[in-house]
Amino acid sequence: MKNLKGACIFGQSGGPTSVINSSAAGVFTEALKQDLITEVYGAAHGIKGMLEENFYDMSKEDAQTFELMKTTPSSALGSVRYKLASAEDDDTDYKRLVEVFKKYNIKYFFYNGGNDSMDTCNKVSKYMQKVGYECNVMGVPKTIDNDLFGTDHCPGFASAAKYVATSTMEVYHDARVYDTGTITIIEVMGRNAGWLTAATALAADKGKGPNLIYLPETDFDMEDFLAKVNDLYEKENHVIVAVSEGIKDSDGKYIAEYGNMMGGKDSFGHAQLGGLAYTLAGFVKDKTGAKVRAIELSLLQRCASHAGSRLDIEESFLAGKTAVQKAVEGYTDYMVGFERPEGEYKTTIKLFKLDDVANTESTIPLEWIKDDCTGLTQDFIDYATPLIQGASELPFENGLPVFAELKKVQAGKK
Amino acid sequence: MKNLKGACIFGQSGGPTSVINSSAAGVFTEALKQDLITEVYGAAHGIKGMLEENFYDMSKEDAQTFELMKTTPSSALGSVRYKLASAEDDDTDYKRLVEVFKKYNIKYFFYNGGNDSMDTCNKVSKYMQKVGYECNVMGVPKTIDNDLFGTDHCPGFASAAKYVATSTMEVYHDARVYDTGTITIIEVMGRNAGWLTAATALAADKGKGPNLIYLPETDFDMEDFLAKVNDLYEKENHVIVAVSEGIKDSDGKYIAEYGNMMGGKDSFGHAQLGGLAYTLAGFVKDKTGAKVRAIELSLLQRCASHAGSRLDIEESFLAGKTAVQKAVEGYTDYMVGFERPEGEYKTTIKLFKLDDVANTESTIPLEWIKDDCTGLTQDFIDYATPLIQGASELPFENGLPVFAELKKVQAGKK
Repeated sequence: MKNLKGACIFGQSGGPTSVINSSAAGVFTEALKQDLITEVYGAAHGIKGMLEENFYDMSKEDAQTFELMKTTPSSALGSVRYKLASAEDDDTDYKRLVEVFKKYNIKYFFYNGGNDSMDTCNKVSKYMQKVGYECNVMGVPKTIDNDLFGTDHCPGFASAAKYVATSTMEVYHDARVYDTGTITIIEVMGRNAGWLTAATALAADKGKGPNLIYLPETDFDMEDFLAKVNDLYEKENHVIVAVSEGIKDSDGKYIAEYGNMMGGKDSFGHAQLGGLAYTLAGFVKDKTGAKVRAIELSLLQRCASHAGSRLDIEESFLAGKTAVQKAVEGYTDYMVGFERPEGEYKTTIKLFKLDDVANTESTIPLEWIKDDCTGLTQDFIDYATPLIQGASELPFENGLPVFAELKKVQAGKK
Repeated sequence: MKNLKGACIFGQSGGPTSVINSSAAGVFTEALKQDLITEVYGAAHGIKGMLEENFYDMSKEDAQTFELMKTTPSSALGSVRYKLASAEDDDTDYKRLVEVFKKYNIKYFFYNGGNDSMDTCNKVSKYMQKVGYECNVMGVPKTIDNDLFGTDHCPGFASAAKYVATSTMEVYHDARVYDTGTITIIEVMGRNAGWLTAATALAADKGKGPNLIYLPETDFDMEDFLAKVNDLYEKENHVIVAVSEGIKDSDGKYIAEYGNMMGGKDSFGHAQLGGLAYTLAGFVKDKTGAKVRAIELSLLQRCASHAGSRLDIEESFLAGKTAVQKAVEGYTDYMVGFERPEGEYKTTIKLFKLDDVANTESTIPLEWIKDDCTGLTQDFIDYATPLIQGASELPFENGLPVFAELKKVQAGKK
C-alpha cells in the first residue's frame, strides 16, 4: 500500500444507469478534497478518452453541478464499449495509457462500470504493476443487471428495479381495464442475469404483477410457455408475462432470435438483443387468438431518474467517494462493493479484489426461483425490498426535471 | 332545468388514463354529499355494466379509497369500448337502458370518456328526452389524446404529457452516451391528434428532446423523413425522432402499416396501431447504416401515475365534482370542460353542449406546427407548460406505490 501524490482520472464505461453520475459526483467531490490528489480529471468516453488525452478538469465544475449529477441519468462524461486486448497479445493501448498517465502524473485511476469494465480496470492495473508504474486503481461498480461478482448488489440496479416494479404495477392496472381478454408481455433488460426482470416479482408480491416471470437463469421452453399462457388466459382472461431479454432455449439459442427482428453483436461480442416481446407476442397470438400487447421497457428502465431509489442514489455516491478514500489510503486493485449485514438492512461497504470480480457474472441463486421457473421466492422479495427504499429527489422546475450541465473544460491535449 | 331526486350512475369508457379515477373520485365524493341523490352507483365496464345491471354501491367504499383513486391509474370500475347503434337503426340498447334506469330510479347519468364516449352520452341523453324519461346527463372528459372539442384541454393529457416529456429528456441523455452514432425513434400515442407527441417538444425546448417531431396533423413523407434523418445523423451523430402512432402519408395510409407488423381494427372500427417505431427503425437503418433504436412508450404513457401532473389530478377531480354539482342544479346534456383565461393560467371550468362535442376531434392548430412540419412553435410550449405543473402525490409504502382497492359491493342484480 502506497500513499501516492498526483492526479486522478475517472472514467465511465458500459451501458449507463440512472445513478452512474451519482458515483461520479462521489469520486469528484471527494477527490477535490484530498491533499494527495493534485488534479481531478474526468475522461470523455472512458478508456477511449484516456488514450486520446481527451479529458476534463473537474475542479472547474460547480458544487451545484455535482449535486445535480446525483439525479442525472446516463453517463455525463460519455461512456464507451471498448475492450482492451490482452496485454500479452497487443500492448499498444497499455503503453499509450502509461505514456499518458506519466505525462499528466496520474497516480489514481478510477473506473466505473460492469463486468467488462472491471476487466479493463484489472488489466490496466496488472500492466502498470508489471512495468513498474505506480498507480492506485479502484473499480466502482455500476450495472442495472446487478451481475457483478461478490458485491451484494450493484449501484444502478435498485433504481432500475424500482422503476420496473412501479411501471409493472401501473401496467397491471391498465392491462385489465376491459372485460375482453388481453395478454401483455413485458420485456426487461438483463443479458445473462435475471435480477432486473425478477424485480417484477415485487409487483406480483403486491398482487399487481406478472402471472409468469421468465429469467435467463433457466431454460425457456416455448411449448411449455404457450401452454401455461393459454391455460391462464382461459382461466383468468388477463395475463401478464415478464421476460428477460436474455432468455434462451435448452440449446442456448436466444428466444429473441426466433423472430429474427434484430441482428448484430455489440463490440464485446455479445448478441445485441431486442424485439423479444414482439417475437413472443406473435407466438402467443397464434396460440391463443387473444389480443396481445408487447411492451419493451427499453432505455426507459435504465435512465428513469425520476423514479429512482434514494438508497441507490446515496449508495452510488458513497461507492465513488469510498473508492477515492481507499485509493488515497493506499489501496489498489479493488472494486468497492457492498455486503449485507445480518438483520435489518444497512449500507455496508466491502472491497473486492478486481481479480475476483473481472468477467465473473453473478446470477440469481437457483433456489430463489420457483420450481416451475415462472416466479421468484420470498428470498428475492426480502433481498430486493430494502434496496428500493426512498424516492429520487430529482429536482423539477416549471414542471420538468433539471439535469446537470457540465462545463467540460478540457484538461488533456485534445 | 329540473331538480331531480333519484339515484346516479357513473361509468368509465374508452382507453384509460392515469387520472380517470380522479374524476371518478370527484363524482362519487360529491354525489354522496348531495341530498337529491339517493344512491350512488358505479357501473362495471361503462355502458355495458348499465345494460347488464352490473354496478356497485359506491357508498360502501371508504373515504381513503376515493383519496387513493386520485393517483390510481386505469379505470377502477372497468372500461369498455362499446359503440351504441343509432337509436333510429336499433333501439334495443336504449330501451334496455331506460328499463334499468327506471328500475333503479336513476335520474343522473355521468359518463367519463373521450370522443366516442361523449357520443354515447349524447345518444343516451337524446333518446331519454325523446321517450320522456327525465334524467340529467353530464359528460366528464378524459383522454391522453387531448382531442375533445371545445375544452382547452382534456383531463389525462397533462399527466401523460409530463411523463412523455420527462421520459424523453431522460432518454435524450441515455441515447447519446457513446461517441458512436445512434438514431432513436420514440413512438407516442395519438391516433389523429398529435398533442401527446407534441409534448416531446417540451423536452426539445429544454435542449434535451427530439431533433424531429412528426404529428398526424400533417402528411408524412418517407423520403423527406429519411433525408432529414440522414442529414442530421451525418452532422450531429446522435438523432432523436418522436413520431405519433397515427402518422399517415399523403394517400392517407398509416405509416405503421408499411411494416405490416400488426393488423386488426378496434371495435370502433379504428385501425389498431403499434409497431410504427420498429417499422421506421428498419427504414432508417437501411438508409443510414446507423445503430437505430425503437422505443414505444406504449401503455406506460397513459398509466404512469407516479409521474403525473398534480394540476391534472386536481382538474380531473374537479371535472367530476362539477358534473355532479351542475346536474343537481338541473343542467343536462353538457360536458364539463375547461377554458383558458387571459394572462396567467388558472383552472376555469366551462360547460360544452354534448351535441357540439360528440365525435368532433380537436387537433393541433396548424399554425403551431413549424413550417417544415418537424416541430412545434412557442405557442404550443406556452399552451402545455402550465398544464404539467406539480408532481403526482402517489403514495409509496415500503418502496412501492399504493393504489386504491375498491370493495365493489354489487348494487345491481348481477
